[in-house]
Amino acid sequence: MSRFLSKNYEKLVPYVPGEQVNVKVIKLNTNESPFPPSPKVLEVLNSEVINKLNLYSDPELKELRSAIAEQFGVTPDMVFCGNGSDDVLAFAIMGFCGRGGSLACPEISYGFYPVYADIFGVDLEQIPLNDDFSVNVDDYIGKGKNIVIANPNAPTGLAFGVSEVEKIVASNPDNVVIIDEAYMAFCGMSCSELVKKYDNLLVVRTFSKSHSLAGLRVGFGIGSKELIADLNKLKFSFNPYNINTLSIKAASAAIADNEYYDDRISRIVATRERITAQLRELGFNCTDSKSNFIFASSDRINASELAAKLRERGILVRYFNKPKIDNYLRITVGADEDMDTLIKSINEILEEKK
Amino acid sequence: MSRFLSKNYEKLVPYVPGEQVNVKVIKLNTNESPFPPSPKVLEVLNSEVINKLNLYSDPELKELRSAIAEQFGVTPDMVFCGNGSDDVLAFAIMGFCGRGGSLACPEISYGFYPVYADIFGVDLEQIPLNDDFSVNVDDYIGKGKNIVIANPNAPTGLAFGVSEVEKIVASNPDNVVIIDEAYMAFCGMSCSELVKKYDNLLVVRTFSKSHSLAGLRVGFGIGSKELIADLNKLKFSFNPYNINTLSIKAASAAIADNEYYDDRISRIVATRERITAQLRELGFNCTDSKSNFIFASSDRINASELAAKLRERGILVRYFNKPKIDNYLRITVGADEDMDTLIKSINEILEEKK
Repeated sequence: MSRFLSKNYEKLVPYVPGEQVNVKVIKLNTNESPFPPSPKVLEVLNSEVINKLNLYSDPELKELRSAIAEQFGVTPDMVFCGNGSDDVLAFAIMGFCGRGGSLACPEISYGFYPVYADIFGVDLEQIPLNDDFSVNVDDYIGKGKNIVIANPNAPTGLAFGVSEVEKIVASNPDNVVIIDEAYMAFCGMSCSELVKKYDNLLVVRTFSKSHSLAGLRVGFGIGSKELIADLNKLKFSFNPYNINTLSIKAASAAIADNEYYDDRISRIVATRERITAQLRELGFNCTDSKSNFIFASSDRINASELAAKLRERGILVRYFNKPKIDNYLRITVGADEDMDTLIKSINEILEEKK
Repeated sequence: MSRFLSKNYEKLVPYVPGEQVNVKVIKLNTNESPFPPSPKVLEVLNSEVINKLNLYSDPELKELRSAIAEQFGVTPDMVFCGNGSDDVLAFAIMGFCGRGGSLACPEISYGFYPVYADIFGVDLEQIPLNDDFSVNVDDYIGKGKNIVIANPNAPTGLAFGVSEVEKIVASNPDNVVIIDEAYMAFCGMSCSELVKKYDNLLVVRTFSKSHSLAGLRVGFGIGSKELIADLNKLKFSFNPYNINTLSIKAASAAIADNEYYDDRISRIVATRERITAQLRELGFNCTDSKSNFIFASSDRINASELAAKLRERGILVRYFNKPKIDNYLRITVGADEDMDTLIKSINEILEEKK
């Protein structure tokens, strides 16, 4: 820290993203899709578009917001777009929780929520999960605080239903409830319809996982016109041109290509179920993940050791050295052949342990 | 404003970007380059790169920071990259001024500085320019506040020299001095060398103007390792993957193509000088702009009327309805043929007034 940085940020501990590597490995550590983006993306990122990059992108993001709105059956003024869903979450927590405001989230969840609370000076309550890692919805009923919950949750992969989301939203009418649906495409229980009924719900989604566009950085929030106007007010006071022209074009094309993505998502779900079954046969305890990753633990080898041994074999998975989950691995559902290599490697590692 | 937005932002007035239009017009209102980006940009944004967008971008931005560092003769850890230079300015003012901290800037300058002060709760002093619109450097000597100055300044286009920057930086050792060099490529008096000598200087640059990449959203700051580490701390607590893979590739290729950009920049400078001379012949008062725009005023027609009449002819220029500059137009230096059309149109408009 330099001697110039505001004392507000003295104890700030930044988020640590999963490792990004250049060498040839099987990368199952950051929940990326094993599939390339829709061919429509390649089509729209053509020389005509690239040669016009001398012109500013549209700060209102009309094309992209319209494309998203159409998919979700809402109007474009109910859609806020960010430079990745992290951008959406940052503006939402900055705006609705404010300095000295409140926020509640699950104790085990996306590791960025406490960082946002820290950077924006928000009083954060982290609520323990049930012993089976499920979110205890009752803990959030009538909470009287702003709330952010990932559904499906990460890194557990567990999800709860729309009716339970509605109970939380309806019972906290004076606070904003943020449902982070980064992984919802692999689950199919989105609460996005509820934004038409409740003015205090913000549903956050991303192109990074389901739409094979992690490298493009586009996320969005769906909510009431008033919430979205607030987020735009902050965006226009921080970084009006927050999404570049290439991302606008690519994401707009991608979200319209349901045929391509429905197929890839169902393949990922099928692989998830197949590999989860195989891990269970090997004695692993796996949660009932509804996302594009598997959360698994074994009595036969501890998670940090398994992660290290997989790494030696060129397979990266995510290990969290945190209480309650430090014997679990979060394993992204990758390509079938890579997942087969994973199972084979785990088998070998377990055999060596015998 | 919804009933949920923090009271901190009640009076926040967002920045208003210049109008972006889709219809065919001569667009001289947002200081874009009339030239497409370097052909190298088209080369690197190929199908191989696009088909790998399923993978996250590098949050450390090694490739891009190295490419920039090489151009400026610094090390990559002295370079911070943002999603446009607005992103860099936002993190810098957020981090170094903090809530309740201080900032001084010229009264007439980039309209975003007061917005940043507002959103981050910074006590802003706006210091009047000299009557000729030049920055009075003495006003900033030993100021004892954080400082941000655009050099060349906008919308005046006037610049001051490196030795004067050094006086400001050296006399404010306990505060951060941000020199916003968005337009410096058209001027050639960058103070970036001073970052090796002073730990309190941050030089901010952008790819938007000189590098014909406004639509790509890449800006950067050059400063001491400690300042850059602070900015990265904030970035990793707000939006770690703030620049996407396409922008990384394109900007890295662009900044290395000096041959292409040196030529385009010198053409823009030549057009600026030619058109400034023609406007002066028409009786306009033009500042000695060192940027890619002309700041001009006429006694024969007031600026708002001229802007409206140019607009009727399909030519957009920027008019600021603000005290002291409300009889000036900021006119981007566009393609030669468009600038000729501008001069012709102004001639006609002045003739009609007779």
